[in-house]
Amino acid sequence: MRTEVTLQGLQAALSPIRLARKSIGFVPTMGNLHQGHIALVKEAKKYCDVVVVSIFVNPSQFGAGEDFEKYPRTLEADSQLLADAGCDMIFAPSVQQMYGNKPQLTTVQVNDIANDLCGKSRPDHFTGVATVVTKLFNMVQPNAAFFGEKDWQQLAVIRHLTTDLCFSIDIIGVPIVRDEQGLALSSRNGYLSPEEKQTAIQIYKTLKMVEQEVKSGQATDLDAILQRGRDYLTQQGFVVDYLEARTPDLKMVTDLGQDMVVLAAAKLGSTRLIDNLQIKCSH
Amino acid sequence: MRTEVTLQGLQAALSPIRLARKSIGFVPTMGNLHQGHIALVKEAKKYCDVVVVSIFVNPSQFGAGEDFEKYPRTLEADSQLLADAGCDMIFAPSVQQMYGNKPQLTTVQVNDIANDLCGKSRPDHFTGVATVVTKLFNMVQPNAAFFGEKDWQQLAVIRHLTTDLCFSIDIIGVPIVRDEQGLALSSRNGYLSPEEKQTAIQIYKTLKMVEQEVKSGQATDLDAILQRGRDYLTQQGFVVDYLEARTPDLKMVTDLGQDMVVLAAAKLGSTRLIDNLQIKCSH
Repeated sequence: MRTEVTLQGLQAALSPIRLARKSIGFVPTMGNLHQGHIALVKEAKKYCDVVVVSIFVNPSQFGAGEDFEKYPRTLEADSQLLADAGCDMIFAPSVQQMYGNKPQLTTVQVNDIANDLCGKSRPDHFTGVATVVTKLFNMVQPNAAFFGEKDWQQLAVIRHLTTDLCFSIDIIGVPIVRDEQGLALSSRNGYLSPEEKQTAIQIYKTLKMVEQEVKSGQATDLDAILQRGRDYLTQQGFVVDYLEARTPDLKMVTDLGQDMVVLAAAKLGSTRLIDNLQIKCSH
Repeated sequence: MRTEVTLQGLQAALSPIRLARKSIGFVPTMGNLHQGHIALVKEAKKYCDVVVVSIFVNPSQFGAGEDFEKYPRTLEADSQLLADAGCDMIFAPSVQQMYGNKPQLTTVQVNDIANDLCGKSRPDHFTGVATVVTKLFNMVQPNAAFFGEKDWQQLAVIRHLTTDLCFSIDIIGVPIVRDEQGLALSSRNGYLSPEEKQTAIQIYKTLKMVEQEVKSGQATDLDAILQRGRDYLTQQGFVVDYLEARTPDLKMVTDLGQDMVVLAAAKLGSTRLIDNLQIKCSH
């Protein structure tokens, strides 16, 4: 496994792969990797000849007062995990490599779906994501790119920009990896105290409660179910950002019998956690 | 020369060219071609093995009340000109091919430089241009793309987005082609009456007057020179949108001894014309 830290190095490393017409699978990450990321790498290995993982903590997707500075940088441990998982190449550029010396004037915006849910409390987040992913897609020029379903809204944004901007890249969503207690793996779980970690599992429990009520066939009011879920999370000590149901492509749910995704974002102390659960109702 | 009207057809036609590792030169146009476009094709032929010209009147770069509907569509005459110029492939997609059935949510915005000059009176124009060019770049994946210097601000926007979004595409600017009287060739010249066409040549004359004053070494006040130019154009019957000087990369000019570009946009009747002239002062 090789590690490239410059765009030039990346291009030199990718050039013989392209010439040999090997397929390239791409997994963009911010590092501090866990088994959720490793699932992406393993999925990419199934689809593609060569797997490239980028590790870049992208400043433009963090808002003021968010955790850009303290976001954990753990390249050595990440490299070990990736080597074990069969990753072929790490691309770990600096901010200066990614954004250069000139001011960056160009942004990629995905309207509507980027303004819902997380976009409401993180107004520039998805523009930062969409812009850096567009840059990375143009640098790596992969055949397929792999994103975790934990960031369901991000996945929807990426799918839309890939279609809208006519990238010839397959976008593959990979299911959430959870710990034994149901907590969705996330780099931000590392911020939690042991007590907070115990509380954090209530997010998944709440999503499952919503699922059960929706599937019971007795409920008729989705808003009331979600409100009970929000109240439960608040009782557990969360500051709830949202608990909402959307169609899988993030449209409004109009009918309790539709397939849907229930999405949650809530803060425990200063740590913001997100999770979601697909509910398949239609037959 | 082949003509493709679908993305699938384009990809099928480009695939053997890529496999043979031939270089692709790309000239995006809105059709209604003139010798200015042909100069782009000829320049592309010098640089690249294969030249692809797109012809697409892009609705998203026209504002309300602009000339999208009446913009001339002349595919047959364009094809003849392009065949004679040595173009290898025309890509002439429909609006439906370019934008699909789903709503397009993604836009590419180039801030700052896109809000100056033409951006002031055409607020969404360069977002429309930047978005469609990003789409076309991803469809054609050229080695180099060729743009006329007549649209100087557009060229600056494209250069910026290409760098910012990390496209591996050389952007080549090609000098303005003028008729015998100095009028910059433009598809919109076709809207002019014979009398208006006589008046239209005053734009270039004004740019040359500004150049002469700047180069005379006697002037100290650039604003005053430009104001005289605006007044002259108004006297000739134009409604002046702007007559401004900028550095070649569209920053403010701070010193009369700098290299600069003088840029003009003015209306004759309902026809909006633009032109520019580079002034080299530094040695």
